Amino acid sequence: MEFYCSQEELLAGISITQRGISSKTTIQVLSGIMLKVSNNHLYLKSTDLEITIEYKVPVKTVTEGEIILPAKILTDIVRKMPKEEIHFSMTEDKNVKIKSSTIEIDLTGESTEEFPKFPQLPEGKILGLSELKLKNMLKQTAFAISTEESRPVLTGVLFEIKGSTLNLIATDGHRLAYKVAVLEDEPKTPLKVIVPRKAITELQRILVDDEDNTIDIYVKDSIVFFVFENVIFSSRVIEGKFPPYQQIIPSDNNTKLKVNTKILQTSIERAELLSREGARSLVKFKISDILYLTSNTPDLGSLSEQLPVDKEGEDLEIAFNAKLITDCLKNIDVPEVYLEFNGSFNPCLIKPVIGDDYLHLVLPIRTA
Amino acid sequence: MEFYCSQEELLAGISITQRGISSKTTIQVLSGIMLKVSNNHLYLKSTDLEITIEYKVPVKTVTEGEIILPAKILTDIVRKMPKEEIHFSMTEDKNVKIKSSTIEIDLTGESTEEFPKFPQLPEGKILGLSELKLKNMLKQTAFAISTEESRPVLTGVLFEIKGSTLNLIATDGHRLAYKVAVLEDEPKTPLKVIVPRKAITELQRILVDDEDNTIDIYVKDSIVFFVFENVIFSSRVIEGKFPPYQQIIPSDNNTKLKVNTKILQTSIERAELLSREGARSLVKFKISDILYLTSNTPDLGSLSEQLPVDKEGEDLEIAFNAKLITDCLKNIDVPEVYLEFNGSFNPCLIKPVIGDDYLHLVLPIRTA
Repeated sequence: MEFYCSQEELLAGISITQRGISSKTTIQVLSGIMLKVSNNHLYLKSTDLEITIEYKVPVKTVTEGEIILPAKILTDIVRKMPKEEIHFSMTEDKNVKIKSSTIEIDLTGESTEEFPKFPQLPEGKILGLSELKLKNMLKQTAFAISTEESRPVLTGVLFEIKGSTLNLIATDGHRLAYKVAVLEDEPKTPLKVIVPRKAITELQRILVDDEDNTIDIYVKDSIVFFVFENVIFSSRVIEGKFPPYQQIIPSDNNTKLKVNTKILQTSIERAELLSREGARSLVKFKISDILYLTSNTPDLGSLSEQLPVDKEGEDLEIAFNAKLITDCLKNIDVPEVYLEFNGSFNPCLIKPVIGDDYLHLVLPIRTA
Repeated sequence: MEFYCSQEELLAGISITQRGISSKTTIQVLSGIMLKVSNNHLYLKSTDLEITIEYKVPVKTVTEGEIILPAKILTDIVRKMPKEEIHFSMTEDKNVKIKSSTIEIDLTGESTEEFPKFPQLPEGKILGLSELKLKNMLKQTAFAISTEESRPVLTGVLFEIKGSTLNLIATDGHRLAYKVAVLEDEPKTPLKVIVPRKAITELQRILVDDEDNTIDIYVKDSIVFFVFENVIFSSRVIEGKFPPYQQIIPSDNNTKLKVNTKILQTSIERAELLSREGARSLVKFKISDILYLTSNTPDLGSLSEQLPVDKEGEDLEIAFNAKLITDCLKNIDVPEVYLEFNGSFNPCLIKPVIGDDYLHLVLPIRTA
């Protein structure tokens, strides 16, 4: 194996590929990045046996071949190399020489024999959408993924095609985030997979704010593939049935507020500071022509605050875990939101005033 | 106690004052900030019994008085208040009401009776110098403070007046940093105090890059005071005798290099990545007309690199703990440095090519 490549292109690839490695792995071969040179490209591969990342870097190939190098030291070395052409060459005893004009580094490599086979990309993508759009969809749903392992189906984001829309849904049983994207072409293949938290987190790190780059999604044998221009990212999906979320999204309300998103967010964040009643973080809403927020932490202090709102319908008193509301508001970049209520015991519906592609449900806390 | 103040001025004060509080304190009264209103000023005070911080905020006083409020929640609240005038008022049962136009917060306060008396600022400052200058002096010395408690005198920075210069010196036994400032007026009082690490760290956070602001330094009864426009910062000094550092600063050399600061820094950082020989981080210098750096981590890999240098004197081979050299180079903002050597067993002297106000010593590691 011998090739020449640009430090900057190699660093871009390694920075992404090394994210596929679990810092907790005890399997030696999984703590490395596989380098495979073929057809004037270097393929960088990593896996934690749940997700796989394959990144393609253009190189000048002298001879093809493959090797595994320790990920952390390789990343650190390439990051600190000068922005010049780098020359990689493998000796027969699996050592790799990394050279620039003034630097010569020898790294001990490892045979690729034990490296896991990667799942093969199936034919026929299910859908494509822009990087920017997918990134925003994940941002507005990922925070609602459950952190409790007791219900595995809630520890991921549901990707679901309905007609010509892609829906992303996440819920932890206390709140639910629901985001819709209208696709340019109606997909022919159905899709309903739960993508696990780890894959969502790494995807969010790989995705950039680019409207023009398209991500293609493929699914086969319980594996979902996200295909970028230079990256193939795959993950096992979570087996099991996602709860029937449509049933709990209310279609009616008795009280409806229109309120400034950022003002509400800041107010609830303030109220949260004094909201420790027992083990719970509790902020009370008293809704009339004004929205009164109150909170109280015994022996420390209390807060009351009033916000201007446009109200339709009945007056109401209701209480929430403050964080569940602010998590949602933080991820809405529209200036105003609607809050819709159905009495003190039913979920509150939050949605942006502009656009009908996002909604969020939060269960209240019973205080009586 | 009742007063009005600007959120921004109050936040500036609280952000600095809360740094005086130890997160580990088990004494209730020391986890709070004391607020004292007197003469149209609010004095914010905190202490961990080693350092004290007193910050002066201009306020509109209605009635004078004093109270202690819990530091963390007070900081969080003021940070999240809108940028408007805030009204503070104390009730007879030591509760404090914090109000803005739409917000009303009640905080449980505490009597100031148990709060420690602060040391009194003596008359007659010893010297004054600009914030920017003191900040830079600390930056170039603080990193060399010893982290080992076995020799307490090395766990701080020595402040010493010699004629019309202020010298700051720190050493951990393996390296020594020495920074000089020429003062405008020759101080009349001698000064030789060791300021402990904690005080240095907090001072560095308070100091801003301002050439015009003057810091005045006072010392009395083993307490050093740094007096800013709005802040009085005090710290106990470390008792004991600082080692006679002048004796170990070499005046002569057999080998002298002139080298680009940033190139040398980056090269040594790279070499450091592969420098684990046993428990030590070892980078070898081979000096002839070129500087060769080599390092080696068994079973992982090795590095060799060549740097252009201007050399005077003898060829030399010498080895260092890489971090001790890069710590120094990182804090030199002059493009070129001299490295002066006296054989393989004596300390290396590093100093900027421009300016004679800074020098740094690093002991080599014997490899034979």
